[in-house]
Amino acid sequence: MKITQRPTSKINDVDFNNLVFGSTFTDHMFQCDFVDGKWKEPEIVPYGPMQIEPSAKVFHYGQAVFEGMKAFKDDDGNAFLFRPEDNWARINKSSARLAIPEFPKEYFMDGMRKLLTMDNDWIKSGDGNSLYIRPFVIATQNGVSASPSNAYRFMIICAPAQAYYSGKVKVVFAQKFSRAADGGVGFAKAAGNYAAQFYPTNLAKADGYDQIVWTDANTHEYLEEAGTMNMFFRVGDTLLTAPTNDRILDGITRKSIIKLAQEAGVTVEVRPVSVAEIKEAAQKGKLLEMFGAGTAAVVVPVESFAHDGVDHKLPSDVSDSYAQRFKKALNDIQYNRAADHHGWRVKI
Amino acid sequence: MKITQRPTSKINDVDFNNLVFGSTFTDHMFQCDFVDGKWKEPEIVPYGPMQIEPSAKVFHYGQAVFEGMKAFKDDDGNAFLFRPEDNWARINKSSARLAIPEFPKEYFMDGMRKLLTMDNDWIKSGDGNSLYIRPFVIATQNGVSASPSNAYRFMIICAPAQAYYSGKVKVVFAQKFSRAADGGVGFAKAAGNYAAQFYPTNLAKADGYDQIVWTDANTHEYLEEAGTMNMFFRVGDTLLTAPTNDRILDGITRKSIIKLAQEAGVTVEVRPVSVAEIKEAAQKGKLLEMFGAGTAAVVVPVESFAHDGVDHKLPSDVSDSYAQRFKKALNDIQYNRAADHHGWRVKI
Repeated sequence: MKITQRPTSKINDVDFNNLVFGSTFTDHMFQCDFVDGKWKEPEIVPYGPMQIEPSAKVFHYGQAVFEGMKAFKDDDGNAFLFRPEDNWARINKSSARLAIPEFPKEYFMDGMRKLLTMDNDWIKSGDGNSLYIRPFVIATQNGVSASPSNAYRFMIICAPAQAYYSGKVKVVFAQKFSRAADGGVGFAKAAGNYAAQFYPTNLAKADGYDQIVWTDANTHEYLEEAGTMNMFFRVGDTLLTAPTNDRILDGITRKSIIKLAQEAGVTVEVRPVSVAEIKEAAQKGKLLEMFGAGTAAVVVPVESFAHDGVDHKLPSDVSDSYAQRFKKALNDIQYNRAADHHGWRVKI
Repeated sequence: MKITQRPTSKINDVDFNNLVFGSTFTDHMFQCDFVDGKWKEPEIVPYGPMQIEPSAKVFHYGQAVFEGMKAFKDDDGNAFLFRPEDNWARINKSSARLAIPEFPKEYFMDGMRKLLTMDNDWIKSGDGNSLYIRPFVIATQNGVSASPSNAYRFMIICAPAQAYYSGKVKVVFAQKFSRAADGGVGFAKAAGNYAAQFYPTNLAKADGYDQIVWTDANTHEYLEEAGTMNMFFRVGDTLLTAPTNDRILDGITRKSIIKLAQEAGVTVEVRPVSVAEIKEAAQKGKLLEMFGAGTAAVVVPVESFAHDGVDHKLPSDVSDSYAQRFKKALNDIQYNRAADHHGWRVKI
């Protein structure tokens, strides 16, 4: 791995108490080019702009996938990743679906480790603080013909982060627009999946909602995911969440919460969750909680959901909140405040 | 409009008889930045690489749409565009769906005219020769948070082209993978729509097919489009094509062919076309032609289609081929060899 160090750090210019999510980047970045059928020697260089031709395929045909990860620091200054091999495996699943070559595990893990060691001071301890890590791949071949690129760049950039959302969100269940098709790329962290959500989300925001919970494109009868979060529903004492499939991202926060909930003795049903049953549960007072789960947002409780133009409020206060309990359980593992029986925590 | 001319043209380095589609670019390009809520002064500069940060939103969230157009030259050296206002209108439809600000008509038309005047020598006369024009917009704000960009770059780049496809193609009707969802972005020329097709197309190619004809994601019973082409089916003397909707691109070649066919007295049915009826027509010998239509490819005749693992051959020779007839009628207008009653041809 070639390493070019930044002469002086820019860390002292950063106000770590007033970070806008994903907008301040650390001193260095990792990059590795795929040319002539193979990944070349990776390098770490100072974070900064790159030169790219306007005809680069990523701009025209959207071959771009990414991951979202976080590094955490305990009060003794030890830094940790959370299930990083799952992110490596998932970016390669995303890549395969978009005809992008898979990235070697040792390049991913070694590059990440070296980068985070160099930029270790950017990982701040304290609850809610983390270093958000963004591995991504883009198609770099020049040429405007609609076929897979023969050149790619794999990069890792990092941005210090505080908590992503604050407070509860109002969501609306999708009834017109859709996020993903059967047989499409909804399960992949493909760049195009996100752009497709912005316009419907803008409409929802104009109506006073924060987020859309997407439903199946065929019938709009089943709840899927929220674009940057998987969704959980607590009906009575049972926790419901949709199974992952080719439309729904296999969220790492999602599967960690399922595991933690099961170990805590909570009944978790991973099965299609219908709009009708959630509305009925709400009407009967049995829908106690709804929350989103994702790496950037961690756990986001829902205040109300709308469907058919009607708002349904969730209880404002529930004893033994699952959202709070499993967020804390997750954070305790991530920040090295609790034992990690699962081997999820990886010391940098 | 600010103009920076290339000191010397690189046109003499180009072999116009051996062009790879979309890989050789002209001397200049058009660009215009959207910053602080408005489009700034456009400029024309030498074609070349640009500087962009790795955190630019286009790489992460796929806000990128494009158009495909061509300029043609007649034997007297006059250059023409074909229905350019339709491309302007369509890129703005695509942009709106991806939460990208619309681009002013005068910037688009004036920029195109000026650029093509400067690079006029790159438009070669002769049937099949054209200048392929690629307007596109990308999100340029730096930041890895999943929300619409507040900065964009609109660009026009141009590549001299010969005929795109040669000969007939073998297609397969999609039965597992999908291109677009109801309520999704299939109608838009969104970058992400193309990346999503590459992997299934690679699988199809491994099975000996050139292209996939996409079907509706819900049932796979209705034929939609081929990703870079709309599809036409000739059953007896009737021409069938699917109606445009939120999953199917409103192709300019498609609607031009519909118009030319209607004016030639051909019955054109714009309605959902089922796989079953096309298979039945093929079995009864009534399926005389199938062809794709798009700007890059113009008209591409289909040799055979596959469904349920069975190949169905189309007649190798048909008298009064619609594909040939309407391709010629279209080209005659484009190359200024025929009267243009529709006002489609626009002199540069």
